[in-house]
Amino acid sequence: MEAKQLRQEIRSGAFNRTTSGAAGNNVQTNIVILPKAYAFDFLIYAMRNKKAVPVIEVMEDGMTESTHAAGSDIRTDIPKYNIYRDGVLSETVTDATGYWRPDFVTFLIGCSFTFEQAILEAGVEVKHIAQGRNVAMYKTDIATAPAGVFSGELVVSMRPFNKELVEMVSDITARFPNMHGRPVHYGDPGAIGIPDIMKPDYGEAVDIEDDEVPVFWACGVTPQNAALNARPEIMITHAPGHMFVTDMHNEDFKET
Amino acid sequence: MEAKQLRQEIRSGAFNRTTSGAAGNNVQTNIVILPKAYAFDFLIYAMRNKKAVPVIEVMEDGMTESTHAAGSDIRTDIPKYNIYRDGVLSETVTDATGYWRPDFVTFLIGCSFTFEQAILEAGVEVKHIAQGRNVAMYKTDIATAPAGVFSGELVVSMRPFNKELVEMVSDITARFPNMHGRPVHYGDPGAIGIPDIMKPDYGEAVDIEDDEVPVFWACGVTPQNAALNARPEIMITHAPGHMFVTDMHNEDFKET
Repeated sequence: MEAKQLRQEIRSGAFNRTTSGAAGNNVQTNIVILPKAYAFDFLIYAMRNKKAVPVIEVMEDGMTESTHAAGSDIRTDIPKYNIYRDGVLSETVTDATGYWRPDFVTFLIGCSFTFEQAILEAGVEVKHIAQGRNVAMYKTDIATAPAGVFSGELVVSMRPFNKELVEMVSDITARFPNMHGRPVHYGDPGAIGIPDIMKPDYGEAVDIEDDEVPVFWACGVTPQNAALNARPEIMITHAPGHMFVTDMHNEDFKET
Repeated sequence: MEAKQLRQEIRSGAFNRTTSGAAGNNVQTNIVILPKAYAFDFLIYAMRNKKAVPVIEVMEDGMTESTHAAGSDIRTDIPKYNIYRDGVLSETVTDATGYWRPDFVTFLIGCSFTFEQAILEAGVEVKHIAQGRNVAMYKTDIATAPAGVFSGELVVSMRPFNKELVEMVSDITARFPNMHGRPVHYGDPGAIGIPDIMKPDYGEAVDIEDDEVPVFWACGVTPQNAALNARPEIMITHAPGHMFVTDMHNEDFKET
């Protein structure tokens, strides 16, 4: 499906599920929407934690159409929004229009769907995609670099791969430095503060077989965790897995 | 000389000239200091014009020591500061302490000294350095991408090279994508809106011989030009050629 058509179906409500695998080669992004009073701190936070929070575009206050998505409206073109009030998730909605404020600034943030596509194209199966699940995400004990009111631990996504494929998969994702890049860890989940790999903090668990190793990447959900500490009076994000689909292509972010 | 010792000599006034060639392999940066009210717009302007304004560090309000320069003080450790009031250069001073405000935010911005070092190491002479002059810089007619109150034309630096070396020199600088990277233009100055190559807008002119071609790179002085349009009540920058010396090394910014 064309990206523009998909955004229209999302806007009309005809498409209301996770966008995983729904947009082919088009870049999908995490989103964070904040009042302008928090925007500068957030942008520094993103720059200091680029691996988790790679900013693709900033839509300043007054903008609702992304320059990377023709005819888009950031208030309606995401299947599910999370509304955080004072740092606490209060509602999940399919249309953010009623919550909109003229001082809102929107950040489009790189997403692992881009490197997942590259892994699939190398002929390697990605288990949660094959099983039709949302990727498993975890809070770690790795501190992010704070900026202003934003701080907190890194959130990672996890994909299990056969031991012999870990290096190859790592090298593939390293070629997307602005889409989380190389893994931050593989192997023992306890080493990065994850007590139970079968209990992700976001998304859905996947089984790990004996010949498989869990591989962890910095995740664009990290800002949602930082918001728990910053407690902005309001913050809107995508619901995990329900992304913003742009007109950009994954290969635009591939470095040779 | 050690970077830290050089900063101390600058602070004491013992060193008060251009820092070109004075800091060996240490990264030198352009600086822009603005009231926090302008900082968000400026940071978006920088991100949208990354080739001219590659941000290395943001020191938020309250910070005067760079995390990349131990024991530094941004108010005193630059040989010459330009003070702009309402977008107009009003004073050039050697100490910014008397101008300091608690709401000032400082941006450290990549500088061409890094790629010049790489050109020299490849055994190629850089003419203005050999002649002990400041590099020639020009306003062009190439528009930058605006953000908030910041807009304006790209400023470029120019170095003449023998025709046969242009490609090699271009490839060397392309390996420093966060230090202005590949040239934006070479050859006819008129093609990018420069009426007279012997009359630079900043820095000093250099002769161009018959077998040489002028090569142009995006320049970190671009924000000073944007300030003419934004007219912030106050903005402090380095004086061209008089940079901030960090503890980072040039090769840290080299991509293979």
